[in-house]
Amino acid sequence: MKSLKVFVVSDSVGETGEQVVKAVIAQFRPNFENTVIRRFPHIENDDHIKNIVEIAKAQDALIVYTLAEEKMRQKIHHSCQQENILSIDLLGPIIQLFQEKIDEPPLEEAGLVHKLDDDYFRKIEAVEFAVKYDDGRDPRGLLLADVVLVGVSRTSKTPLSQYLAHKRYKVANVPLVPEINPPEELFLVDPKKCFGLVISPEKLNIIRKERLIALGLNDDAIYAKQERIKQEIAHFYKVVERIGCSVLDVTNKAVEETANDIIERIEQNK
Amino acid sequence: MKSLKVFVVSDSVGETGEQVVKAVIAQFRPNFENTVIRRFPHIENDDHIKNIVEIAKAQDALIVYTLAEEKMRQKIHHSCQQENILSIDLLGPIIQLFQEKIDEPPLEEAGLVHKLDDDYFRKIEAVEFAVKYDDGRDPRGLLLADVVLVGVSRTSKTPLSQYLAHKRYKVANVPLVPEINPPEELFLVDPKKCFGLVISPEKLNIIRKERLIALGLNDDAIYAKQERIKQEIAHFYKVVERIGCSVLDVTNKAVEETANDIIERIEQNK
Repeated sequence: MKSLKVFVVSDSVGETGEQVVKAVIAQFRPNFENTVIRRFPHIENDDHIKNIVEIAKAQDALIVYTLAEEKMRQKIHHSCQQENILSIDLLGPIIQLFQEKIDEPPLEEAGLVHKLDDDYFRKIEAVEFAVKYDDGRDPRGLLLADVVLVGVSRTSKTPLSQYLAHKRYKVANVPLVPEINPPEELFLVDPKKCFGLVISPEKLNIIRKERLIALGLNDDAIYAKQERIKQEIAHFYKVVERIGCSVLDVTNKAVEETANDIIERIEQNK
Repeated sequence: MKSLKVFVVSDSVGETGEQVVKAVIAQFRPNFENTVIRRFPHIENDDHIKNIVEIAKAQDALIVYTLAEEKMRQKIHHSCQQENILSIDLLGPIIQLFQEKIDEPPLEEAGLVHKLDDDYFRKIEAVEFAVKYDDGRDPRGLLLADVVLVGVSRTSKTPLSQYLAHKRYKVANVPLVPEINPPEELFLVDPKKCFGLVISPEKLNIIRKERLIALGLNDDAIYAKQERIKQEIAHFYKVVERIGCSVLDVTNKAVEETANDIIERIEQNK
């Protein structure tokens, strides 16, 4: 297998470029075998570009670049051509297309997506909110949240809350356990904002067994027992019915997929 | 100002496409004025494409697509051409380039970036870790973490921890307050893993005042007093010196930028 080395060159942090490169590499090598992605952030002048192209040449790397200034894009394009390096201009063609459509010139400023504007602070606030009101820590959060997640353990409540926070939703989550009465606030929340997360008993059993083994415990500890799981899921449905909210099955689903589903439902209800 | 409507069409959730579109729109309208981005996830057949192209036509939208199958990419390309809709194939050209480079055929499977593989579970684990060990909740986390953040309040410790978690780093953070002795574990951590976060006293004062006003409190409450801030920062430097770790100034920096800086330092020390 040939080694694959990709340089992501950006005038900002290189976040966007890296995400695209990862999506493409996954199409060839889903486990990123024999593959290196290297980011070059804050690339702002000709010297930077010259250096990177030299390193790429020496290491036989591809270059994917996200540069706001057209002059810089042309510069790296020509340098790569001269040195016979395969390269891709990620933003340039889309910037041109958008310009054509709306008939406005681009600002050509680096790092505009990472601006410290209202939107940025909304995201930061949402991330902090989700940490603060994770795992039923403070039931007052339920009434302040845009989205409330309830579920048995191991249904990805925490990562899902964080993912939604990055999309600017304030999320609180509450674990449901038969022994503990759910907070009264849960039944005051608009059911359209609330989502019950469920997972198949078989899958839950596997996850818990793995967890127990990872903790060095005997895998037939009560936590993993089938009976117990059934009881928890029955309790879950009882609570969810009282709330009157939708239920999402997260079995074998990535957090991104469930989050997307929730966002669609929330936006439809607006 | 012309309205700008962009459809992001994906065979998976449309995450990557949306991020690129946002980066491009920010180059024209940093506050996304008069702009709509609409995601069409899980687009898997010709009928889906036909429908979307019709809606795009009716709404005068641009289409940006991320589709793994070449057949599907051709289909949407031709449909858009027929209907005179401006469109961009985001992944296609890069897939071709990579194929040329490594001489392997692409898998053409949707959603490979969202696979429930080891890497995915590492991310989930890191996100849960950061929530669990946020705000000095449990000092045992400090010895298990890949990265430890310490700082005075309002230095973005929580969102920074979460951002790094998405990059697979396990992060614990500890607030430093003169009244509370930092946990002893902090001084057992490898200083190369640890980062002190500092912010200019002026900026900290502004942030705190805003916070007090948002909470409906008088803005000259002790929390915001200049003297107090100086005292906190002096205490911060005393602790950081004892740890022997680097200090990063986060004043006016986006979380992404600071995170990038930390990742570079961590990777260099490996």
